[in-house]
This record gives sequence, C-alpha cells and structure tokens, in this order.
Amino acid sequence: MSCSEFSLIEKYFSRQAISRSDVLLGIGDDAAVMRLGLDEQLVVSTDTMVAGVHFPEATSPFDIGYKLMAVNLSDLAAMGAQPRWASLALTLPESNDDWLAQFAAGLFELAKQYSVQLVGGDTTRGPLTLTLTLQGTVASDQYLQRNTAQPGDAIVVSGQLGDAGLALRQLLAKDNIHAEGLARLNRPTPRVVLGQSLLGTATAVIDISDGLIADLGHILDASKLGAQIQLADLPLSETVKLTTKDGDWSLPLNAGDDYELCFTLPEAQLARLDQQDCLLTKIGRVVEKKGIECITPAGGLFTPQKAGYNHFSSALQAESLS
Amino acid sequence: MSCSEFSLIEKYFSRQAISRSDVLLGIGDDAAVMRLGLDEQLVVSTDTMVAGVHFPEATSPFDIGYKLMAVNLSDLAAMGAQPRWASLALTLPESNDDWLAQFAAGLFELAKQYSVQLVGGDTTRGPLTLTLTLQGTVASDQYLQRNTAQPGDAIVVSGQLGDAGLALRQLLAKDNIHAEGLARLNRPTPRVVLGQSLLGTATAVIDISDGLIADLGHILDASKLGAQIQLADLPLSETVKLTTKDGDWSLPLNAGDDYELCFTLPEAQLARLDQQDCLLTKIGRVVEKKGIECITPAGGLFTPQKAGYNHFSSALQAESLS
Repeated sequence: MSCSEFSLIEKYFSRQAISRSDVLLGIGDDAAVMRLGLDEQLVVSTDTMVAGVHFPEATSPFDIGYKLMAVNLSDLAAMGAQPRWASLALTLPESNDDWLAQFAAGLFELAKQYSVQLVGGDTTRGPLTLTLTLQGTVASDQYLQRNTAQPGDAIVVSGQLGDAGLALRQLLAKDNIHAEGLARLNRPTPRVVLGQSLLGTATAVIDISDGLIADLGHILDASKLGAQIQLADLPLSETVKLTTKDGDWSLPLNAGDDYELCFTLPEAQLARLDQQDCLLTKIGRVVEKKGIECITPAGGLFTPQKAGYNHFSSALQAESLS
Repeated sequence: MSCSEFSLIEKYFSRQAISRSDVLLGIGDDAAVMRLGLDEQLVVSTDTMVAGVHFPEATSPFDIGYKLMAVNLSDLAAMGAQPRWASLALTLPESNDDWLAQFAAGLFELAKQYSVQLVGGDTTRGPLTLTLTLQGTVASDQYLQRNTAQPGDAIVVSGQLGDAGLALRQLLAKDNIHAEGLARLNRPTPRVVLGQSLLGTATAVIDISDGLIADLGHILDASKLGAQIQLADLPLSETVKLTTKDGDWSLPLNAGDDYELCFTLPEAQLARLDQQDCLLTKIGRVVEKKGIECITPAGGLFTPQKAGYNHFSSALQAESLS
C-alpha cells in the first residue's frame, strides 16, 4: 500500500462538479470553513453504513456512494433543510483505485443534483465503513420536528413502501430480484424538495428508513399520541401487494430502507400537497389513544411488530456477520 | 443483542454535562439544529479512529473516547476556531454497557472542558470504528491556514515531540512503557487556547499529528517554501533525547501522534508568545529553498524520512492487521 491518506483525498475527492461560493476553505487544510447567511440556522445529520450490515458485501461501489449521500439527504429532507456541505469518513480495507473512482462517482452524482460540496473528511484503513456528515441550513426557527403532531391530523407517506425491503430479502435468499425494488434499495430518492415544501404545512415529519411503524412510532411517542392506519390505503407496488395477500403486512410496515418521508398535517391542508412531484398518500390519522392501530382491508385489526429495522439484529447482519 | 440504535444513543449520550444555548435541537430528531452568531463562520473537521490501526486493541474505552475528542479538537485548534458541537458515528462489534459508559465518560471529560455539546450521531454494529465530526466557529474571515508562511518566518512547535510515538513503539514491542509518553499517546492535550491566540500573529498553522516533517511539509508545500530545522533545538523529554544519541532523529521527526501545533510567524512576533500556558519552542526558520534541511547538533546534515505517519502502512497496523 503506497497511497497516503492525503493523496487519496486529493486524487478522488477534490475534483467534484460542485464548487459553492459559501465554502471559504474546502478540502486540504485541518478543517473546512463555510459561511452561513443572515438568519440561517445550521442543520447537521450523520449516518454510517457498514459493509455486511447496511448493504450486502457485493453492492457496487457506485451504489454505496450514491446511497451514502441519499440516506443523509433524507435526514435533512425530514427537517425541511437545504443541504449544502458534506464531510466523508471513509474506512476501507485497501486502497483500490477502481473502487474509489466508482464510489466517488456515485457520491457526487447525487451531491451534484442537490448542490452539495464535499468539504473534508478522513480516509483510513480498516473494515469497510462509511460515515457521511451532511450540513444544511433552514431559515431562522423554521424546521420540521417529530414531537408536534396533533390529534386528528392526517398521516401521509411519500412514494411506495416495501420495495427496497423485498429486494433485500430476495438478494439474501438468492431469489430472482424484483428490479424496481433493487433500484429503490440501492439508489433511494431523498425527498429534499418535498421536505422543504412541508415547512409551515406539516405538523411533524420523519424519514422512515427504519420502517413505517418504528419511525411513525417516534413521531407518536414524541407527540404523546397514537395513530390509526388503514392498511388498504398503503401505497404498494403490485409485487409488494402480493406479499400481503395472506395477511402478513410486515414488509411494508417494518422492512425499512424506504427513504421516504412520513408526516402529519391538518386534514384541511391536504389540498396543498397537490403540487408535489412524488406520490403522496394519506394512510391514516393521528388519534389521542396511544399505540398504532392497523385496520385490515376486511375491517379487522392487524398487530404490527413494534420494532423496526434494527442494525443490531437485522436479517442482513445475521446473514453476513454470524 | 437487544439494544436498538435509538436507545443506545439515548442511554449513554443524551446525559452530558454541557447544554449549550445555541443548540436549538440536539440528539433525538433526524438532524440537529444550531445557531451561529452574526459574523461567525462555520469550521468543520472529521477524524476517524479504527481499532488496531489508530490505537492498540487493548486501549481502554475511556482513553478511546478521550482521544477521539482530542484529535478533532486539535484540528479546530489549528484553525484558531472555537469548538462548539460534535456528531459521533460509533460502530461497535457488540452492545457492551460497560464499554459504552466508559467511552462516553472519556469523550465527555474533554467535551466539558471545551464546552462542546454532542448534538447527534449514529450507532451501528460492525468492527470498532469511531468517527467524530466537530463543528466550531471563527470570527468572520479570521482563520489560520497552511499556505501563508513567509520566508524568514520563525518555526515554532508547542509541547514536546516523540513521547507518544515512543510509548506506542514500546507498547507494540511489549517493552516497559515510558509513563509520560503513554499519557501523551492516550490523552493528548489539544492546543485550543493556543490556536485562538495565534489569530493575527501566526502566518501558517498545522496540527502535527502525522509527524513534524510530514505536517510542516504540508505548510511548506502549500506556501511553496522550504525550512531549516535545528535538531538541537527540538523540545524533547530526556527519554526521547536518549533515542537520538546515535543520530537517529526519526522518533521526534516522524513518529506522529503528537497532537501539537507547528506554526510560522515573523521573528518580531516571537515576544508575543510569552503569555502561553504551554511550552513553545522555536526550532528553525522558513527559507526560500524548497525542502526541509535538518542541522544536527554537530553542525552536519540529517536527512529525515519524507513520509510521516501513514495509516495505510503504519507500524501499528502491520502489527495488528497482518
């Protein structure tokens, strides 16, 4: 191994398409220096992906880079923030030119779409682990929280549920893979524009990467409320719908890896959502009574697992690390 | 394993001593939200530590937490920044209550000294890898860079060189360990106050975690200049001095893990450094001729290794990962 940390960063990560005027000092010093505007607040999220835990070992480096940026963008989307700057901590087993070039291409493809500039980071040797810290801004005191849902609010989700989870199950079982699901698993679409449009409209917002029940549960716990979900209203692809026909709703409710937003808002505000460029579906409503009640299409009750995707006991991990 | 990511963060990392008034939203939402003052710029650094690469596997969790905070504080010190907020990405092989409590205690001990609040992060399962992203601020346009050294400037270092590197060598060789060195290795003192005091005085500043020659080399390369170092003037403990008596200066010059600052400033400004509470030593001067010339105590020339501590080929890694 002859490549030093410094030259790795120089070689693959300094030549990016985005060069923001608010970056006073980017990659190459002890730290980066950036400028915020008047009345802007700083919003910061950090997400780590570990090979064999958060993605199968065979995932392409392009997809790993793309997804690393997507999952962090999804967190900022859930705050209604404008993404701006990223720091990358990349731990990799060996310096592999081809891997690094592909990884950087995936990372920068999405960074470019959202005008995010990579301003620094650290490259180290070890088992493949990737952490991105993403910084963005919101206008003063305008951000979307979890603990402010109101009784009677409609509950809405973006996109479709369960496709990524199904593709992951199929990958691990070495089954034929549902192509649409694989695309959702490897290259999720962060709902950045949607998140920003919800400022002043939604009462609470969360990113449902850990599964609808677990993440909606965080909104409800924080707001000290409950919910009633109509399972017939869940936005599902035909393939995911098939998995529910025997009454097992765990895929759309618990599988996770759906980088969609779930949010609450007064019924009267639903009409304001018509302008969005992604699918939005009302799936239920917020109620005073705690807990999440799921109503089946036949009008019965389905009791979902409480836990969502848990990185300390996931199927992927059991497969790869045991 | 029954502990979810969410409850791990809640349990060990939400009860910290520091609660800053500029944190609008800390741990517990999709992202954190912080407020900067008027005319403040954001300064961000990220450092990763991997078990067996950046510290021996047997290092205590308290020391790992302490050092993780110290190495990031050292980067902000080299910018002259005021540290404020941290995000922690913690990947660990298993959920171990005792380990987490000790690690958090080490991290928070130093965080408290510098009023740094942990505002978010991610906890995942995998081989022990720790990334801290530290955010701080500088007054508008006031920050210390690498590329602005001037010919004729004095070169100064803080603290003593080589003690941490010696302790690491002894640890790996299972020799008796130099106690002062072990303390420097495990709990380095970030020079945050010194860094801030150098604003407006130093022409270029760097943190010499990768070794004096490598890091001073970054200043000189960026400034398109060279240096002459007087080896007799290097600030060395008696123990480190002993290792140089046969003419091998690699320990103080290249070993790394000295979280000290190296900076350049006009000779006329040297008198302004008297008020510092840490040892400061002039070790040489900046010259027009490129390269670093090291003058031995006898007046001869010593040719240092060009490379510093390289995390892709270090002694520690060769020991632990091969």
